[in-house]
Amino acid sequence: MPPLLSVFNQNLVPMDSRRNFLQKITLGSGLASLAPTLLSATPAADARQKPARKLRVAIMGLGSYGNRVAKAMKDCKSAELVGIVTGSPEKIPVWQKEYGIPDKNVYNYETVGQMKNNPDIDVVYIITPNSLHHTHTLQVAAAGKHVICEKPMADTAANARKMMAACEKAGVKLLIGYRLHFEPYTRKVIGMIQAGEMGKLNYIDNYQGFKIGDPTQWRLKKSLAGGGALMDVGVYCLNAARYLANEEPIWVTAQETKTDPVKFAEVDETIQFQLGFPSGLVASCATTYNFNFERLYAHGTKGFAEMSPAYGYGPLKGRTHKGPLDEPIVTHQTVQMDGMADIILNNKTLNPPVDGQEGLNDMIVLDAIYKSIRDGGRKVILNE
Amino acid sequence: MPPLLSVFNQNLVPMDSRRNFLQKITLGSGLASLAPTLLSATPAADARQKPARKLRVAIMGLGSYGNRVAKAMKDCKSAELVGIVTGSPEKIPVWQKEYGIPDKNVYNYETVGQMKNNPDIDVVYIITPNSLHHTHTLQVAAAGKHVICEKPMADTAANARKMMAACEKAGVKLLIGYRLHFEPYTRKVIGMIQAGEMGKLNYIDNYQGFKIGDPTQWRLKKSLAGGGALMDVGVYCLNAARYLANEEPIWVTAQETKTDPVKFAEVDETIQFQLGFPSGLVASCATTYNFNFERLYAHGTKGFAEMSPAYGYGPLKGRTHKGPLDEPIVTHQTVQMDGMADIILNNKTLNPPVDGQEGLNDMIVLDAIYKSIRDGGRKVILNE
Repeated sequence: MPPLLSVFNQNLVPMDSRRNFLQKITLGSGLASLAPTLLSATPAADARQKPARKLRVAIMGLGSYGNRVAKAMKDCKSAELVGIVTGSPEKIPVWQKEYGIPDKNVYNYETVGQMKNNPDIDVVYIITPNSLHHTHTLQVAAAGKHVICEKPMADTAANARKMMAACEKAGVKLLIGYRLHFEPYTRKVIGMIQAGEMGKLNYIDNYQGFKIGDPTQWRLKKSLAGGGALMDVGVYCLNAARYLANEEPIWVTAQETKTDPVKFAEVDETIQFQLGFPSGLVASCATTYNFNFERLYAHGTKGFAEMSPAYGYGPLKGRTHKGPLDEPIVTHQTVQMDGMADIILNNKTLNPPVDGQEGLNDMIVLDAIYKSIRDGGRKVILNE
Repeated sequence: MPPLLSVFNQNLVPMDSRRNFLQKITLGSGLASLAPTLLSATPAADARQKPARKLRVAIMGLGSYGNRVAKAMKDCKSAELVGIVTGSPEKIPVWQKEYGIPDKNVYNYETVGQMKNNPDIDVVYIITPNSLHHTHTLQVAAAGKHVICEKPMADTAANARKMMAACEKAGVKLLIGYRLHFEPYTRKVIGMIQAGEMGKLNYIDNYQGFKIGDPTQWRLKKSLAGGGALMDVGVYCLNAARYLANEEPIWVTAQETKTDPVKFAEVDETIQFQLGFPSGLVASCATTYNFNFERLYAHGTKGFAEMSPAYGYGPLKGRTHKGPLDEPIVTHQTVQMDGMADIILNNKTLNPPVDGQEGLNDMIVLDAIYKSIRDGGRKVILNE
């Protein structure tokens, strides 16, 4: 088994020199408390070396996915869980005990602004319902902390833009929780495509869905989820279509099907959507809350890649025209958080990126998908 | 390897009794010359027994697919090639020699009406460019011969309806060349679905395309082909969606992409289309003349079926949730023509059918696909 980080590191390239990064954060506003946090190192550290310490993360939203991220971070080399933000007081002692979180790093949604005065937290990972990502990002940015926001970035592209503006203004980084951008099978496929091994891509065929359980959960409430299956899991198919294509779509069409108008009174159940790209590449995608299915497929003039499962927490499985994929099996959130630590602490960048623009690009298409559905399937032209 | 016919015969059920069939053709018009042909048997034959002789077939259109069918018929048990209709005089001696065709069974497009006076031909298999199917079917029906018409049935649903009316009026059968309805892998999958082994179907994902060669061929001329990839190979995906679904679609959407407006000046290059069915089942399909791809996929609550290749001349390959498909490898056109002989001579029917209504049902959707494209992807509601 090859070393885990080799797969990831080959795609991490330094974007700015450390010097530029220093200039950038010096020029940023509201960073008085952040700069020492970000740049502190042991007193003896050479200024040209990487900061030796770990990225110090607070998780906002202690639901099932927050739990998963927290557990995965136990194995991180470059990131550590140091704080929590929660509206559920009963969860506080449980998390404090499990993760050794000190009282001073415990916040609720009213006190999160006070994090500004806490130099021991670098970044807040927002894992709250989709429609709250916007408000919570603004809160965290106002507290001068970097933001990792779970996908989908927001409920609308307009809110995504406000999130980017707020982080820009606060001089903090904004990352979106695209864990698959760090996942070895996915990176292998992306790497093969970018190296030209598939030739010119012609067709992408992605779908993911699952049969949703508890009818009272927030995912079925429009005010919290922003949408249904499309927002929650369809975004994987969309994001994958974009990172496989390596270009941005120029048109979108979409169709909705609802078999259970009671359970899915507020949000979408099953959506098919299609994307057209400048090269002539087209993508057919589908997503649902009504049954389990999952596939990533990229077809090129010289080869193909297929993964199924392709989007879950793993192990993933797949093959290309060269044979079965055989990549390291990792805990996705562990490699994600180590990678994000490198991006935040060392100013690395990733291709495809996990920044706010990447999130916004998905949100623009999600908006267009809903628009096409409202327009009876009519083609929505995307202007960038 | 199980006997070839077992796969096929289990799906052939007698529709009418022989008595009803006799009544039907007695009531038909213009059948004076047909009845003895159809019903002749050895003098000693019991009237309740099947006619012992083979179906006597003339092929109209001696292009590459006509050749393929003719060769395949050499192995037929119930059908034989006895005549030809061609506009290429130079092909006549070649075919006469190869297939032992007597002069009296050789026709051209001007003389085909004289076939009325030839009791030695039962049926004409029309394998001419798509846009000519309509005219040729009317000619053959007027000559009192049964018709097998290659898919797509016609260039429009309106012409398909005229073909049905003409055959109905002439009292002849009209079959469409849906060879896969007779093909063991396909029949196995259909059988499993109809037996409930996949549970309730939720999603169908079919695509087929190939990179078309010679830019001067009739398939690229609208006046002959009626359309492009959709008419030629997209119809496989559509027809498969319908026979997998076992219900008729209630809406259609479609999108077209053209990367080579010169080569594809007259016909469609790449089309994606989506179907919605009454049960909530949806299908995503795609077809192209610009690259090679091929898949049939049916996803149900209890299992799935996948074939790739799924639509070509074989050998096909596939798997279900139970494991790899392992069906008899046959020459598709051989089993098709034996099966069609049974339908025509013994009045059997097949489920899914290969009759004019089956062809028309595809044509209605093809019309709707082109309409949706003209309407920018808008949903076309199908009223049946």
